[in-house]
Amino acid sequence: MVASPPARFSVPAVTQPRINEANRKSVGPLSMPPRLLLGPGPSNAHPAVLQALSLRQVGHLDPAFLAMMTEVQELLRYAWQTDNRITIPVSGTGSAAMEATIANVIEPGEVMLVGSMGYFGNRLEDMADRYRADVRTIKKPWGEVFSLEELRSALEEHRPKVMALVHAETSTGACQPLEGVGDLCREYNCLLIADTVTSLGGVPLFVDEWGIDLAYSCSQKGLSCPPGASPFTMSDRAFEKLSQRPGKVPNWYLDMSLVGKYWGAERTYHHTAPINMNYAIREALRLIAEEGLENRWQRHQANAELLWEGLEDLGLVLHVQKQYRLPTLTTVRVPAGVDAKAVTSQLLNDYNIEIGNGLGELGGKVWRIGLMGFNSRPENVILLLAALDRVLAAAGYRK
Amino acid sequence: MVASPPARFSVPAVTQPRINEANRKSVGPLSMPPRLLLGPGPSNAHPAVLQALSLRQVGHLDPAFLAMMTEVQELLRYAWQTDNRITIPVSGTGSAAMEATIANVIEPGEVMLVGSMGYFGNRLEDMADRYRADVRTIKKPWGEVFSLEELRSALEEHRPKVMALVHAETSTGACQPLEGVGDLCREYNCLLIADTVTSLGGVPLFVDEWGIDLAYSCSQKGLSCPPGASPFTMSDRAFEKLSQRPGKVPNWYLDMSLVGKYWGAERTYHHTAPINMNYAIREALRLIAEEGLENRWQRHQANAELLWEGLEDLGLVLHVQKQYRLPTLTTVRVPAGVDAKAVTSQLLNDYNIEIGNGLGELGGKVWRIGLMGFNSRPENVILLLAALDRVLAAAGYRK
Repeated sequence: MVASPPARFSVPAVTQPRINEANRKSVGPLSMPPRLLLGPGPSNAHPAVLQALSLRQVGHLDPAFLAMMTEVQELLRYAWQTDNRITIPVSGTGSAAMEATIANVIEPGEVMLVGSMGYFGNRLEDMADRYRADVRTIKKPWGEVFSLEELRSALEEHRPKVMALVHAETSTGACQPLEGVGDLCREYNCLLIADTVTSLGGVPLFVDEWGIDLAYSCSQKGLSCPPGASPFTMSDRAFEKLSQRPGKVPNWYLDMSLVGKYWGAERTYHHTAPINMNYAIREALRLIAEEGLENRWQRHQANAELLWEGLEDLGLVLHVQKQYRLPTLTTVRVPAGVDAKAVTSQLLNDYNIEIGNGLGELGGKVWRIGLMGFNSRPENVILLLAALDRVLAAAGYRK
Repeated sequence: MVASPPARFSVPAVTQPRINEANRKSVGPLSMPPRLLLGPGPSNAHPAVLQALSLRQVGHLDPAFLAMMTEVQELLRYAWQTDNRITIPVSGTGSAAMEATIANVIEPGEVMLVGSMGYFGNRLEDMADRYRADVRTIKKPWGEVFSLEELRSALEEHRPKVMALVHAETSTGACQPLEGVGDLCREYNCLLIADTVTSLGGVPLFVDEWGIDLAYSCSQKGLSCPPGASPFTMSDRAFEKLSQRPGKVPNWYLDMSLVGKYWGAERTYHHTAPINMNYAIREALRLIAEEGLENRWQRHQANAELLWEGLEDLGLVLHVQKQYRLPTLTTVRVPAGVDAKAVTSQLLNDYNIEIGNGLGELGGKVWRIGLMGFNSRPENVILLLAALDRVLAAAGYRK
């Protein structure tokens, strides 16, 4: 309880409405079950990240904070393999960073091509529509990916100003190859947006080499950080388009011509940065630099292969063809006769393990298993396999 | 360091570009100076809030999290004195919640009236313009407030669909009285938006009694929580306008017709909530319910009066007339011949105390001193007065 000053300063009761006490709930301190988060995200934060998160905060214009921002940007450039000047955490969750890519570069009436092969492709369409783009869509069955030839013919047909692809489709577990796509986009004078929400920090990803102009991600998957600050990067080419737009960006909070000045040399106040989330993301990125990308990617791949082998040993069928499988997120088909949601509930209730149900078209058809960042460890794989074996057996499933 | 599985699962090196190591900075664990944040915000979080923030997370659709969301909503309704169904923390900082109020209820071409008496009134204008409102503005000198008569004549003249006022202007320290404004808005069939960024949790505020239709705030001031999740509330009247709009809200992330379903009975996934920030805001709101609003408001008023008396004892002049002064944020004039920024820098460097410089029109003319939430304590007031006395004396200032 905090103290008030001596009595001579206490003020007379204000003449004001009576305080409504109906919503004054008396609740105890927060207590949460110890979940192992092996779903599509969030995954568990690294303990060192949680520690950084809870440090006492400084101001958003404190010299100590400004110095830390520079470190965050450098470390994020390493994780993304880019030298883009504007490489920052957006002050929101992954969908805000997704929206930032579109809001900044699409002008009303411009053609935007979306490669949709899952739920998050659909979200890109929805967002682009809100920014009054002339949205064109190419689609793939959920779990498949586009070939370079398919992308070329779509670019030829639609001649978009911007094309958006999902590198790592969190709803299907498929990894869209991006080698060569940037070159193709340059040939057609079009910007390339990539959704790397489920790839950053876990899957080989080369923003500059692959010619990606705008990318976004989240903190709570491959980075092992809680959700709330979300990586965003933008090439000079993309910034050039932003600089030349005739009007203001139709979104104040995500306007990179303003946000970029706070994160740039000017350090001009735009909005109060989420201080502690930035502490956390710095620690998460520091751990990536310490481990090294090569080691990290190999670890994710190795643990995913351990999982895949184990799931097949249980007689289950993986939804995505091996060469396009994400090591961070595996979709496995629900066997005939098994109630998908009953299995995820039992894993949660009996063993405190969260895996994801299918989303959208794959609802009820697959489970989604994430092995991301700190959670990509063999002990988590064998625990999940053991738990799944028991829960499936209890549900009457026989290999 | 996390382990990889046994060697038989290790994968061959992928054929991929060489990893660029240039940005692979080697930095140590985060260390931040122990600042006392007595500026315009962020203010220091309550230690119990930082503890809640760092709890291991659960999933955003976990039954335990959904139950906690209900508690957050109830406690937030108490803090705001409202029964509004849509009363939630927006997944971003205060400016995102500000933008949410406008984005959801303004349709292109509609008249929006902004009462501007400081920096944040200007921000409302800027945002409304981006949502293609026909923006009309009435202005007051920075540090003053509007009378009911002035508001009536502006409503009469402009006949807006929405009027926005800043209850607590963080740039000037003035508190705009809102009693009677809601009735006036109903008379003119107009929605009322109120900026309560610097009032929620520290200043008497009655959303329902005063007829406020939309209000927004932040977590890092009166709530004593880190920035990153921001209170938002919306009346049925405002939701009705949202429901009837012909097109989609031109902002996906802040679309309350979708966000409201995640926070409503449906619990439909929209975006991944910032889990830990919600833990923190629950604890912050729990502490408000425990202290009680009446006590909390009186504590803020009493500590502010202690500060005001102390500043006047130093021979300084307060910028706002006493009856309109915010207890949470005090503006004090920089005496002639004193370098405003040199004083704030010295307070920070010598005593680890942050106070704010003037913003916008008041840049260089005032300092801004915040006493908010956990930081509104007599020991902080007397420490600041002692430090300011020394720093001003060193700067050659004589009472």
